[in-house]
Amino acid sequence: MPVKKTKSQPRIARAATKKRALPHHGRLSKFAQSLLAEWRRLQLPGGNDCVIIAVSGGADSVALLLALDELIKANKLKIRIAVAHLNHRLRKTANADARWVKEFAKRLGFNVSISRIDVKKSARQSGDNLEQAARVARYRFLASMAQKLRAGIVLTAHTMDDQAETVLLNLLRGSGSAGLGGIEPVRSLSERAQTKLARPLLSWARRTDTERHCTERKVEFRHDEMNRDEKFARVRVRHNLLPLMERFNPKVVEALARTAELLRDDSEALDSAAERLLELSNADGPGKGNQLRIDLLASARPALRRRTLRLWMAKHRGDLRRLELAHIRAVENLLVGDRGGRRVELPGGSIVSRARGRLIYAANPRTSTARKT
Amino acid sequence: MPVKKTKSQPRIARAATKKRALPHHGRLSKFAQSLLAEWRRLQLPGGNDCVIIAVSGGADSVALLLALDELIKANKLKIRIAVAHLNHRLRKTANADARWVKEFAKRLGFNVSISRIDVKKSARQSGDNLEQAARVARYRFLASMAQKLRAGIVLTAHTMDDQAETVLLNLLRGSGSAGLGGIEPVRSLSERAQTKLARPLLSWARRTDTERHCTERKVEFRHDEMNRDEKFARVRVRHNLLPLMERFNPKVVEALARTAELLRDDSEALDSAAERLLELSNADGPGKGNQLRIDLLASARPALRRRTLRLWMAKHRGDLRRLELAHIRAVENLLVGDRGGRRVELPGGSIVSRARGRLIYAANPRTSTARKT
Repeated sequence: MPVKKTKSQPRIARAATKKRALPHHGRLSKFAQSLLAEWRRLQLPGGNDCVIIAVSGGADSVALLLALDELIKANKLKIRIAVAHLNHRLRKTANADARWVKEFAKRLGFNVSISRIDVKKSARQSGDNLEQAARVARYRFLASMAQKLRAGIVLTAHTMDDQAETVLLNLLRGSGSAGLGGIEPVRSLSERAQTKLARPLLSWARRTDTERHCTERKVEFRHDEMNRDEKFARVRVRHNLLPLMERFNPKVVEALARTAELLRDDSEALDSAAERLLELSNADGPGKGNQLRIDLLASARPALRRRTLRLWMAKHRGDLRRLELAHIRAVENLLVGDRGGRRVELPGGSIVSRARGRLIYAANPRTSTARKT
Repeated sequence: MPVKKTKSQPRIARAATKKRALPHHGRLSKFAQSLLAEWRRLQLPGGNDCVIIAVSGGADSVALLLALDELIKANKLKIRIAVAHLNHRLRKTANADARWVKEFAKRLGFNVSISRIDVKKSARQSGDNLEQAARVARYRFLASMAQKLRAGIVLTAHTMDDQAETVLLNLLRGSGSAGLGGIEPVRSLSERAQTKLARPLLSWARRTDTERHCTERKVEFRHDEMNRDEKFARVRVRHNLLPLMERFNPKVVEALARTAELLRDDSEALDSAAERLLELSNADGPGKGNQLRIDLLASARPALRRRTLRLWMAKHRGDLRRLELAHIRAVENLLVGDRGGRRVELPGGSIVSRARGRLIYAANPRTSTARKT
């Protein structure tokens, strides 16, 4: 992924002691109060930690930055902010947007790092679509910036509207609770990194709230023309599907966010039970081995059994790529009856077989050899 | 609920040995083949058992009855069928529909029981809306008929389209996995009864399949004018919301049915884990007691903890009526920290309090006394 650095190198933002760049009244705005409550609920850091904020220039990220600035200046929050902006070079206004974000962040007294990437080119190289390629590039940029600045946390400004759209997009695909759980409020930025990714607007802020907050603070945020391009399913969900659903329930965005939260909790409880069952079923003792005892798996409830099998295969394969429900069900079928000698080939060529009351995982011999040479 | 019996008393249907009432070709229809496969998958009864089929006269229930008739006459299924029809007296054509069902069932050689009810009156008495009152009356009628005929199973003709509509109606309300699990393929007809309720079309038949099957068998099913009345949310989901969602994914009905199945499995695994945790947490030993140990509950995952608390309260209250997520969360809050002496009042006046490391359930003293006298 070609992420080119521009001249503006990220520096640790100074603790924001500058004179107020924007009018600030004695009382905290309602938006900043809600953000502070969520900050505490999610146990996000204080103590002069470096926090990276992804800012596109749209209403959501601008409102987040304004409210954080307000909280810092009111001594309610003690963090060092670094603003991150990735220029995807997709929109006509991309360069102007980047300049705007840079000036806006400077005006608030924050350091800013701008990077450029040719998303179209990366999409061609990786085979992802534009949205996926842009997302991958964005999170890589944020991770590398977090590493450089030793930031423990990166924030994005996803709102409850983003959450509802994500839930619906996954529902349209027939996802289970993992997909319908939508966007996580806090997760690891990547599998390896210690850095956390948090969305402090996700569980309470509507898009109209962020727009109103910007307007009240007299900041003219940027408009993303891609947000109006109905070639993207997300835009059609936003412009057609959600408005129709609001005619059934005016609070449907809140309802979808509540559903997502309940299903995330369900997933988390089942994943944790699956971790335990995997340890118990490991034929060669906990934490190792490519063999699972069939008796324990066969007597578990289907939802738990499938999660345990998926977890086991993911650990051996390294990831879940191209592993579909159909593969999990095929492996599950190996558990039925007493007959051994059966096998299932997984995408990539690894094999799960059944013998002597055990499931056995074997990596694709060609791939394994190829990797060694 | 005033369910008046008409003169036609239900009798056990004779084993259908009559001459074929409808044309039947040597090979089974595709619809009947699919029904037979699902019948086996759900392990529905054979062995000359009495099976009650709820028939409204619409395409779904008529197609189900036709296919069962086909399977019986082809010796693929050995059951005794009794047709049940409840005249809700809501539609203009209600009496004509009832006559039609009676004649149709007789023509196939099945016994039939028709009952009448004034749904508008029951709705006024119970405070339910028309749909709810009609459903309650229908299932009561089916349960009483099942008892009279000693039928082990009652079938309704819900299709995959009904499933998708139910999932969406619950999603619009912000349900968790219990609601999004939609209609169950097999469940108990009532809490007390041994009779099962099964939906053998639910997981595979589209509404267009049932209509096509009736047309192929040259049976002119009845049309329910209420299915076109957009005052019902379900009708608006069917006519407006689902068609829009099909523009995103032409197989969205199948996708929603798959989601429902995955979430039902999740719910079932979590409910079963909650039963175990409840037994473990019972301070006075398994199966009794109104006290729960806080330590075990507090260390459980939130989704499991909330299900366990709900189960515990349902067992003491007798049901879950008016018990909302907010009440469960309030009781959950009693688990936080070390302080005893706190309490939550539940709808109906019963109290959950915390003392000496335990949660204690106390029924509303006035209600309990009133019941005894």
